Amino acid sequence: MIELVAFDGDDTLWHNESVFSMTQERFRELMQPYVKGVDLDDRLFATEMRNLRLFGYGVKAFTLSMIETAIELSDARVTAEEIASILHAGRSMLEHPVELLDGVVDAIERVSAQHPVMLITKGDLFDQESKLARSGLGDRFESVENVSEKDERAYERILERRGVDPGQFVMIGNSARSDVVPTLALGAWAVHVPYPLTWAHETIDESALATHERYRRITSLSDLPSVLASI
Amino acid sequence: MIELVAFDGDDTLWHNESVFSMTQERFRELMQPYVKGVDLDDRLFATEMRNLRLFGYGVKAFTLSMIETAIELSDARVTAEEIASILHAGRSMLEHPVELLDGVVDAIERVSAQHPVMLITKGDLFDQESKLARSGLGDRFESVENVSEKDERAYERILERRGVDPGQFVMIGNSARSDVVPTLALGAWAVHVPYPLTWAHETIDESALATHERYRRITSLSDLPSVLASI
Repeated sequence: MIELVAFDGDDTLWHNESVFSMTQERFRELMQPYVKGVDLDDRLFATEMRNLRLFGYGVKAFTLSMIETAIELSDARVTAEEIASILHAGRSMLEHPVELLDGVVDAIERVSAQHPVMLITKGDLFDQESKLARSGLGDRFESVENVSEKDERAYERILERRGVDPGQFVMIGNSARSDVVPTLALGAWAVHVPYPLTWAHETIDESALATHERYRRITSLSDLPSVLASI
Repeated sequence: MIELVAFDGDDTLWHNESVFSMTQERFRELMQPYVKGVDLDDRLFATEMRNLRLFGYGVKAFTLSMIETAIELSDARVTAEEIASILHAGRSMLEHPVELLDGVVDAIERVSAQHPVMLITKGDLFDQESKLARSGLGDRFESVENVSEKDERAYERILERRGVDPGQFVMIGNSARSDVVPTLALGAWAVHVPYPLTWAHETIDESALATHERYRRITSLSDLPSVLASI
């Protein structure tokens, strides 16, 4: 018996990685004069990973990492105008309309007719609250939690606080690393809805998941009601 | 009868504004060559306020606002090395040791012997979790909540979730704007412990507070147990 269903936000309900990807494209154009033969994406990712411990996830952290990478890779030749363009690209991400994935509203409606539904997002609280507000989905969840890292402990705390047994909890999300692995480890169910793009940091070997008895994989949220009915 | 006591973190349990202030001093030094006759603090504050809607509170937001202000005020003459120094100043804030105010550990111990205690912080979730971890106080609270804005609605939600009546809740903090006004408005008690420095954004006219029947003001957390005993 399912007692609680939780949705992830980024790349599960609304497009997110595509916005980062677009900004990174703009960053590559800006840095073109300075980075002959350097893999800019790799260098930016290395900066992001180095900063993760201090900055956490989100657009502000990403913007700071772009500026740091630009200064390093250009040997401090990057101009203030170019850095202003990077700042501008970061702001644009925060102002970018939140675009829902196909079938989201219908899926949440159908699931919430059967089960209590909540939202569990990760990363920068301000970014996530702003995206939820812009998504228009705010009223559709009985509760919303934002955690700094989606690990086993974070899910455990959320379930404890609600008195829900892991075996009666289903997490729905695009990220094997954040939505699937920790929930399965806890004894909960996971419905995996992969997104066409995955940030390198979220990429893991997914081969072991397919045979897990509490793992389900769907290609679109429109398949969700029938999958939940089978649990 | 008090059923729940909550502490604020920044400038109530640990020094915070002093770290911002120190960084702003460094920023003034860096910008000295570019800002003849301009009030740099005012300009930085104006940038922060303009960005608040998009960035929220916290060190990353502050660092991005310093960089933006530096580019604007210098008419884009600021160098990449100088921007790297601003980035470095931001990182230093995040790595700065968390220094507890006097009497904090003893006050929490004495209060938690009598009442359930929690922590309610505001702003960047990652900053706040990191500060709590570095403060060594993590295990002393029954629960911790971080909200993007400490308004009446935020406190209301926290109390509702715990089934606590506002009249049986006491909030302790340094900020009249964030810790006192919204809790009094909700019908709760507020113990105000002013900090020597107040960020301009948190400054409000406090004259009306003194006569409020559920307002208490102390100069140090060591006065807290006796004040709570009188409620």
